[in-house]
Amino acid sequence: MRAVVVTAPGGVEQLTVAEVADPVAGPGEVVLEVAATAVNRADIMQRMGHYPPPAGAPPWLGLEASGTVAALGEGVEGWSVGDHACALLAGGGYAQRVTVPVGQLMPVPAGVSLVDAAALPEVTCTVWSNVFMLAGLRPGETLLVHGGSSGIGTMAIQLAHQIGATVAVTAGTAAKLDRCAALGASVLVNYREQQFEDVVREATEGHGADVILDNMGAKYLARNVSALAVNGRLVVIGLQGGRKAELDLGLLLSKRAAVLATSLRSRPTPEKASIVASVVEHVWPLITDGVVTPVIHTRLPLEQVAEAHRIVEASEHVGKVLLTL
Amino acid sequence: MRAVVVTAPGGVEQLTVAEVADPVAGPGEVVLEVAATAVNRADIMQRMGHYPPPAGAPPWLGLEASGTVAALGEGVEGWSVGDHACALLAGGGYAQRVTVPVGQLMPVPAGVSLVDAAALPEVTCTVWSNVFMLAGLRPGETLLVHGGSSGIGTMAIQLAHQIGATVAVTAGTAAKLDRCAALGASVLVNYREQQFEDVVREATEGHGADVILDNMGAKYLARNVSALAVNGRLVVIGLQGGRKAELDLGLLLSKRAAVLATSLRSRPTPEKASIVASVVEHVWPLITDGVVTPVIHTRLPLEQVAEAHRIVEASEHVGKVLLTL
Repeated sequence: MRAVVVTAPGGVEQLTVAEVADPVAGPGEVVLEVAATAVNRADIMQRMGHYPPPAGAPPWLGLEASGTVAALGEGVEGWSVGDHACALLAGGGYAQRVTVPVGQLMPVPAGVSLVDAAALPEVTCTVWSNVFMLAGLRPGETLLVHGGSSGIGTMAIQLAHQIGATVAVTAGTAAKLDRCAALGASVLVNYREQQFEDVVREATEGHGADVILDNMGAKYLARNVSALAVNGRLVVIGLQGGRKAELDLGLLLSKRAAVLATSLRSRPTPEKASIVASVVEHVWPLITDGVVTPVIHTRLPLEQVAEAHRIVEASEHVGKVLLTL
Repeated sequence: MRAVVVTAPGGVEQLTVAEVADPVAGPGEVVLEVAATAVNRADIMQRMGHYPPPAGAPPWLGLEASGTVAALGEGVEGWSVGDHACALLAGGGYAQRVTVPVGQLMPVPAGVSLVDAAALPEVTCTVWSNVFMLAGLRPGETLLVHGGSSGIGTMAIQLAHQIGATVAVTAGTAAKLDRCAALGASVLVNYREQQFEDVVREATEGHGADVILDNMGAKYLARNVSALAVNGRLVVIGLQGGRKAELDLGLLLSKRAAVLATSLRSRPTPEKASIVASVVEHVWPLITDGVVTPVIHTRLPLEQVAEAHRIVEASEHVGKVLLTL
């Protein structure tokens, strides 16, 4: 089958479509015939050689896909060959076929095309598991989302707005902030011009953010703790601004606050299945009802994977960049 | 009435028993005629001028007490004059009488004397709210308690052992570690001679501590994160080793772990009431059954408050130091 392979760690020029061996479904797995996959920042890290795939995952890129069930491994129940699905992957989505543990398969929500369903698994599972299952965002609370126009950002805005939370976002251009506002964000911070901690504090009359979803890590740690409300929860899911920074435990203690750091990819299969089940139960109805929608920047054929990576690296996109097969 | 007042911020010589005005029960409060109170490290900080009492609290020291209900404020139900009780206080326990919001009153558990009940409120509420309600310690997990022979330490060991967790402790002498072992700790670290993170890792076959209860703050932050297991929760409740230290968010993220910092005293009254209710429901039966007991180092008359502070500052004690009236 065709798959995108990384010839050597490096830039987008290292991405090549090549012929590789077909995957075979093990026990409890299905083979998905891929209709589309999506570009995640972790793919770029992996391409550069900074983020090796976990043991057992295919060497090629791709943390999510949509497509058609093509084969069932031993013991798989509830799915049939020919079913449409989307899936959370430990890797291997940039290919014609990929194996998926059955607990990571999700039905395609009504009203979403098979291709566009590839935009859903990473953002819904990441936002739901972190903002809701882990940090427990509640109606009436304030969520601050860094990178509000990213795939994760656009989903976090919609879900938090939908449950009745106030949503604050950071982004780098007025156009991106406009898109965030249209999705439900009401506190808009241009991080090139404003200090988010000041804007959030003022917008909440001194209360601060109850939950912060952060992808910057070290660079924002002190400012995020400063922006937190009493009982606030800072959830770090990316380290784009480095990994080590000073933490003021005295300030954290005076706020009775928490710093949580997590990732989805490294979790054991049963934990992923539990997240996926919760997402299908709680998020899928909102998508079926049309009140939450996947935000898609562009759909490119798999052969244009280099251009897709370039767009994401340059942060030109709003929402997800898909690759179709 | 008599109360211990701090004449000026400083050493134990600043503690004087003086005549002060009697407290009056406001709505939803009772007046407790104090039988005993207990020395907490926060009292020493307050004596030194580093920890001002929260708004509305009496200026004199004392975060817990036992005694007899002497008067009822407006709207108090469920308690009568003459009832024995112990209580979590925002301050003012080092006195003949103190007012208590009714949600912070607890019955004296069967089998515990009225005086000894003064040893229970801070340690049970602190350990239960942090190790169990917040960090969610589960049977089969490993808890690391720093300062295992302190009042909080001796209660944390017993409660965690009782629910079927493995308990690791640090302490500064072999005699203190023996006492911890007798209470149920099975991993014993003399912090003067050993690196706790190495001992805990080895004792758990590389797994690490699922929950850490820490009173050292900055000084132990990096080592605590290093000692954490995957999905581990570090709960910082004291800053005896300073407040600012470098945090490795990359390590935290790779463990999907959390740093939580809290205090009991600053919580609003409804949160304290909710903790107290949970303690009476879950911890009191274990005390009544005799499987968990208050550990009391000594009982001194209130007039010997200076000696009581000296003992706690010198860390000569195992368990609680009480002051009787």
